[in-house]
Amino acid sequence: MTIQDKNMTMLCDFYELTMGNGYLRCGYKDRITYFDVFFRTIPDKGGFAIAAGLEQVIDYIENLHFSKEDIAYLRGRKLFDEEFLTYLESFQFTGDIYAVPEGTPIFPQEPILTVRAPAIQAQLIETFLLLALNHQSLIATKANRIVRAAEGRTVLEFGSRRAQGADGAINGARAAYIGGCAGTACTISDQLYGVRASGTMAHAWVQMFESQFEAFKAYCEIYPHNAVLLVDTYDTLKSGIPDAIRAFDTVLKPLGIQKCGIRLDSGDMAFLTKQARKMLDEAGWTQCQISVSNSLDEYLIQDLLWQGAKIDMFGVGERMITARSEPVFGGVYKLVAIEEADGTITPKIKISENVTKITTPHFKKVYRLYGNESGKAIADYICVHDETIDMSKPLRLFDPEAIWKTKDVTNFTARELMVPIFRNGKLVYQKPSLPEIQRYCLEQVDTLWDEVKRFDNPHQYYVDLSQKLWDIKYDLLKNHGR
Amino acid sequence: MTIQDKNMTMLCDFYELTMGNGYLRCGYKDRITYFDVFFRTIPDKGGFAIAAGLEQVIDYIENLHFSKEDIAYLRGRKLFDEEFLTYLESFQFTGDIYAVPEGTPIFPQEPILTVRAPAIQAQLIETFLLLALNHQSLIATKANRIVRAAEGRTVLEFGSRRAQGADGAINGARAAYIGGCAGTACTISDQLYGVRASGTMAHAWVQMFESQFEAFKAYCEIYPHNAVLLVDTYDTLKSGIPDAIRAFDTVLKPLGIQKCGIRLDSGDMAFLTKQARKMLDEAGWTQCQISVSNSLDEYLIQDLLWQGAKIDMFGVGERMITARSEPVFGGVYKLVAIEEADGTITPKIKISENVTKITTPHFKKVYRLYGNESGKAIADYICVHDETIDMSKPLRLFDPEAIWKTKDVTNFTARELMVPIFRNGKLVYQKPSLPEIQRYCLEQVDTLWDEVKRFDNPHQYYVDLSQKLWDIKYDLLKNHGR
Repeated sequence: MTIQDKNMTMLCDFYELTMGNGYLRCGYKDRITYFDVFFRTIPDKGGFAIAAGLEQVIDYIENLHFSKEDIAYLRGRKLFDEEFLTYLESFQFTGDIYAVPEGTPIFPQEPILTVRAPAIQAQLIETFLLLALNHQSLIATKANRIVRAAEGRTVLEFGSRRAQGADGAINGARAAYIGGCAGTACTISDQLYGVRASGTMAHAWVQMFESQFEAFKAYCEIYPHNAVLLVDTYDTLKSGIPDAIRAFDTVLKPLGIQKCGIRLDSGDMAFLTKQARKMLDEAGWTQCQISVSNSLDEYLIQDLLWQGAKIDMFGVGERMITARSEPVFGGVYKLVAIEEADGTITPKIKISENVTKITTPHFKKVYRLYGNESGKAIADYICVHDETIDMSKPLRLFDPEAIWKTKDVTNFTARELMVPIFRNGKLVYQKPSLPEIQRYCLEQVDTLWDEVKRFDNPHQYYVDLSQKLWDIKYDLLKNHGR
Repeated sequence: MTIQDKNMTMLCDFYELTMGNGYLRCGYKDRITYFDVFFRTIPDKGGFAIAAGLEQVIDYIENLHFSKEDIAYLRGRKLFDEEFLTYLESFQFTGDIYAVPEGTPIFPQEPILTVRAPAIQAQLIETFLLLALNHQSLIATKANRIVRAAEGRTVLEFGSRRAQGADGAINGARAAYIGGCAGTACTISDQLYGVRASGTMAHAWVQMFESQFEAFKAYCEIYPHNAVLLVDTYDTLKSGIPDAIRAFDTVLKPLGIQKCGIRLDSGDMAFLTKQARKMLDEAGWTQCQISVSNSLDEYLIQDLLWQGAKIDMFGVGERMITARSEPVFGGVYKLVAIEEADGTITPKIKISENVTKITTPHFKKVYRLYGNESGKAIADYICVHDETIDMSKPLRLFDPEAIWKTKDVTNFTARELMVPIFRNGKLVYQKPSLPEIQRYCLEQVDTLWDEVKRFDNPHQYYVDLSQKLWDIKYDLLKNHGR
């Protein structure tokens, strides 16, 4: 039995159920609603985020059901009508879901997932959808920053022990892989998702033996092809590296093995790795890889490399698995339209005193525009579901926050970002493998201009509305009220 | 099937397995080892933390086993000896565990859990133990800060959608309850743990109806005894509160119901709640409770109350469920002793260039000393496992970081903090109920001086070593090396 078998139907905010019961009572059970998932700000003031978590949303939707025990618990709360509890007994998802594929760079205010479903269903799935997308998008986004800082060097995810719960560790390792990490220390993430797990020794291994050299020698004998020795248990330069070299000389050299490694988990990484590289090279262990793993993030990695640290591999723990610098991804789930019995779609808006919290109404599509010459992404273009883009003509863009700023785009290719995932409750999406998702992610990040990828004060990528959509939104704003 | 059924044995860092295989090869399988869990710094620069997560550790230990699929996966990695894989087939925990009960205020550098077990077992459980204790201690600590800021007003946990994974939400709600929250929005946490779940409506409910008043009226009719109306969908003061009052007047008044509520999720909480209170009182709804729920934490709550905001209940989301200001609890797991075949316990130390990373060796006990007159906690006293405290005599304390600072304590009561949880693999601990844990937590926090409880720059509580333990540590430091 694995974590994937668990039924997360009851992982919902309680108000989804009180509202569901109310919708049934009010005759809104079968009323078709449209909800968008979108987010408002990019973590760490970055230029883009990475979408992740869709596979867990799919698993959740496919497993949605209330068990007898769930219904009994709800009945015990003495709030719900028997009609509603009976309805829940055969509850399943019968709606449509559109979403951007995992690994897609995403931007604020654009829908990354749209649900079209009867009101009770669409409401019930809110909590888990947000949880899954928020969590993994957060970690994939952070991991991608860290991987970019490492400039081609290997980054491994090492954070399970500091993750916020088991799923934080397991799915966090998955999301980190999507963002570009090469692997994880978390065994179960390899078993479940194929995120390659690796690991060698903790300080306890070194302490368990009579001497550090004995510990290193034993390890090399057991794992001659995987000998990565932790050299900072007592004193890195005075004894750690000399003992490691002696163990390599004693065990690996006679076997003709040149591939090996050392790991540092404390001390000044710039100074120590430069010294270590020198000592290893002088002893002939030029292929010995140096890994480091102490409180790393994108900024420390940039600094270390800038200072000439000699590092082949970064093991990144708590600052990636919790996205420590900004541990919240603020995706929200908002009603954007209601479909009448005759098929008319009525757009809905939520006004707020905070202008950035005003929603963009209606059932929508999102296009990403790529320049045909540069291959780079120019802008995202949100329009009403029945609009299409004629790529043979110039497309006029305007900034929805400053509508007098316009730009005519020519010689571009438009790609629709959201794809159908469920139709009438049936999965219509071919789930890509995790390596495919990672490859797609890194390719798509490559289509962004460097200006958008800068860590600090990046260029703000354009996310624009079609004229038709803008008019609908503006009309609702003018005429809003009771 | 619930989340509790899942087997988390494979949620371990891969190096636990490579080391385990190595210990077996080196003949260390049955060698008895002692490991301590402790942490080094208190999140948010607070004066203390709250221990939590032990119940999940217990469930994990009791369910520890490798399935056939697990073994097959490991065999496929082509790193492990068949003897080790066979050993894993019948793997179970046969050791002892001592731990501080959940809800205990804890301090840096003192053991909060000690494992005595054969090396392979003790090593394997490292990752999950740290994960469970780190996560829940983090959230319980943060929740306790927020609950103290609310000064007796109700605090509810509302963060599932922003939690870092499903367990982040589910066990996070549990930990928040331990820290003093009155309940949660997370339905499954109520079902699994009895953390009371509640909730009423989202903005979508209001948008679903022809008018806001219709939405409010319908809700009051369905839930007359639980009518908490969300008043900020369009305009809180102009339409939200007037519509709520009209709905209360129309539906609740004729029923003689005076208990009701409104919730604000945006806008300036100080200004709006004061206006709201006035409007409700003038309309005769003096018992209508005001809840707020927008980006709250202990500092914003303190500020709002200081500004005279009229708030009865705080719904706290992302900043509590992720402990946003400091989302990592840095508990570590270190080898502190090895037991020889003849029963001799050899203390072990890990040296580090960073002095605060040096471990305190040996199998230890922790006492908390309470002043008999004040009832307040004076200091924690760490000693070797075979030491006892004679309460009839003065006890000399000294600061391990400044050993010339001494203090003689008299008229005190010493309470041992860690209690036996497992003996020879058998659970010997009667798990308290969650309300019992919360009550114990709040009582124990009351034994701390206000100086220790201050949010900013609190007094540093004393955590001292016995003379015998200090001598052992100092000896190892002097004579360390290879």
